[in-house]
Amino acid sequence: MNENLVADRPTFVTHLECSMTGERYEADRLHGLSRVGRPLLVRYNLDGVRDAVSRDELARRATDMWRWRELLPVRRTESIVSLGEIETPLLPVPASGGANVLVKDEGRLPTGSFKARGLVMAVAMARELGVTRIAMPTNGNAGAALAAYATRCGIETIVFCPEDTPEVNVREIAMQGARVWRVNGLIDDCGAIVGKGAAEGRWFDFSTLKEPYRIEGKKTMGLELAAQMGWRLPDAIFYPTGGGTGLIGMWKAFDELERLGWIGPERPRMYAVQASGCAPIVRAFEQGEEHAERWEDAATVAAGIRVPRAVGDFLILRAVRESGGKALAVGDPAILKAVDECAKKDGLLLCPEGGATLAAYHQALRDGLVDEEERVVLFNCATGLKYPMPEAPNWLDRHQPIDFDKL
Amino acid sequence: MNENLVADRPTFVTHLECSMTGERYEADRLHGLSRVGRPLLVRYNLDGVRDAVSRDELARRATDMWRWRELLPVRRTESIVSLGEIETPLLPVPASGGANVLVKDEGRLPTGSFKARGLVMAVAMARELGVTRIAMPTNGNAGAALAAYATRCGIETIVFCPEDTPEVNVREIAMQGARVWRVNGLIDDCGAIVGKGAAEGRWFDFSTLKEPYRIEGKKTMGLELAAQMGWRLPDAIFYPTGGGTGLIGMWKAFDELERLGWIGPERPRMYAVQASGCAPIVRAFEQGEEHAERWEDAATVAAGIRVPRAVGDFLILRAVRESGGKALAVGDPAILKAVDECAKKDGLLLCPEGGATLAAYHQALRDGLVDEEERVVLFNCATGLKYPMPEAPNWLDRHQPIDFDKL
Repeated sequence: MNENLVADRPTFVTHLECSMTGERYEADRLHGLSRVGRPLLVRYNLDGVRDAVSRDELARRATDMWRWRELLPVRRTESIVSLGEIETPLLPVPASGGANVLVKDEGRLPTGSFKARGLVMAVAMARELGVTRIAMPTNGNAGAALAAYATRCGIETIVFCPEDTPEVNVREIAMQGARVWRVNGLIDDCGAIVGKGAAEGRWFDFSTLKEPYRIEGKKTMGLELAAQMGWRLPDAIFYPTGGGTGLIGMWKAFDELERLGWIGPERPRMYAVQASGCAPIVRAFEQGEEHAERWEDAATVAAGIRVPRAVGDFLILRAVRESGGKALAVGDPAILKAVDECAKKDGLLLCPEGGATLAAYHQALRDGLVDEEERVVLFNCATGLKYPMPEAPNWLDRHQPIDFDKL
Repeated sequence: MNENLVADRPTFVTHLECSMTGERYEADRLHGLSRVGRPLLVRYNLDGVRDAVSRDELARRATDMWRWRELLPVRRTESIVSLGEIETPLLPVPASGGANVLVKDEGRLPTGSFKARGLVMAVAMARELGVTRIAMPTNGNAGAALAAYATRCGIETIVFCPEDTPEVNVREIAMQGARVWRVNGLIDDCGAIVGKGAAEGRWFDFSTLKEPYRIEGKKTMGLELAAQMGWRLPDAIFYPTGGGTGLIGMWKAFDELERLGWIGPERPRMYAVQASGCAPIVRAFEQGEEHAERWEDAATVAAGIRVPRAVGDFLILRAVRESGGKALAVGDPAILKAVDECAKKDGLLLCPEGGATLAAYHQALRDGLVDEEERVVLFNCATGLKYPMPEAPNWLDRHQPIDFDKL
């Protein structure tokens, strides 16, 4: 029905390359990190893409993320796995944000978060390359997306969650057919277990950026944003930054779009948003470092950005700096207040990480980093429904007389 | 950005009419039920619609529900309220359903359920007609959608929930700016309170089918399905039926589409799916009644279809009978098993009401009502994330040696 899922279309991957050293790696082979332990980036023959498809042709396709096929790594159409990766809406939040603020509502994707973008691509590539068993450390949403897609194509999955991962995420992962373990530790402790098992050949390691294709899936946020905004990017993007795959992916997307001639050289300022209780990228940014040290005693209500160490730290920092943006930290009270205000004033229930971007936007306004006239996009990375909400304790006894004035 | 939300387009409402007596009511006035206490249906000048817009023109528009503007009641573009009412995906469920079974995943709509379709339209019309205060009885999802949209356009809302409404729904409603009350009773007990307040002029009554526009919003499920399936409707539709607005709405949509000449006279068989613990429509169907008596002691895990009495009962029964379909009841164990199987085999987490349609489909297969070659659409009316899931109690102590064979 959806042509994007069944039509054979040309693909243009030429090779992969180490994001640190530029060393080349062969395409169509299973890869983890590069020899120096850094993420691999997928490279395309963009001249070929330009000859094969135009912006007009893309506009005629269904708007899901598979319409970008020529800019994606999946070779064989039958490798595609899908749960309906729709183009996520851009929603104005005039009351809680401002007249020029749009929220990209990634909570509408399968399994309720933007993790679906990365995982659908990584799972499709795992399928294409013959992987049968995958393990992953996760704060919740990535594991849910992995479980759903891997289950759908018969790949076995084992998922490790930090002990305080929200219960709903752990249950969702199990429900969707993965084996899931809570571990007494943080996400990098879980990652160490996954790494050990991978070294023993027990499974393929699906940690953030440790396989090359999640970034290609997340890249579609940038492609989609460009198309939705008429090929004119916003002035600033506020992105909740844990592992940073999406920020790195969007930055890569903008570069590819410019090489295609589909956008000009202008770029949004990229604001990497972290929580004050876990802000390794912010600290490194402010200290002028190229890499970010592990953040000790990480703690925030925004579990999705409680990532003490990011393997792509230097790529995040590089993109933020090149863009003229900044890394910003916001406290939990500001995050919760932003979530509350957006729901109460604009009827839109953000996740805490989405709330963090709204809080950071207001902070940036106060600090003069952005002005109200600028077109800004905030990323709400997951549906707010997965997260705890305050109690609503009003009870009414229908057997007693009702005082309508008090309702 | 989305032309559908900002473009002035011609509208074609001629009048409203009583679904029981055919009595005419003036358009562009505030209406509740008809004089005989039955739902009002909106009528259009379909010749005018045919002259104004074609299927090809519709195909060029963004695919959200506002693209159907010429078949919707909202006159003034500035009355439109929106949180991104995307076209919901049709997802194959080959492992848990079958090769020809598609799930229309309504959980991707704003506030995570198909209630958004009805409520966005009803709120837009309330705004257009000057309503400032709305009350509603709800099992949860309708209240959440009402709260979000009403908040977004500054309308005050008071919502009444049965005492055992899922906590997440009650909190979501409060979070999105409504005042919400839990009531010791069922949804029709809550409805009685809303009715009393409405009679006293305290608010406008937004109960299912008691205002004429929710059905027009729900109608878009039928319009969308036709467009998505290339203007050839499926052989059978399984629809979780509480108040039945969606089933009535789709039936109306198919009728309008045929009058427009956009589909032929073929219709899907409509299967109204209820839970064995609350099956008033099934009982009435089997007894050949035109109306359904209240179901006493209603109880089911599928709270959304725990509706003991439906004001549109005769419209549901009429559509089901005209279509050659049937009303079917499924037990809670079958519902939970269907939810589990769809998640574990196809990676898709249904809500219990969606699970009921999958269970009913398998029952209908066994009973020879449908065969595996027929093209079937099941409606998953809400995201499965709002509902309780089984515990996943696996714990792993990272300070102990890990037995990888047991993971």
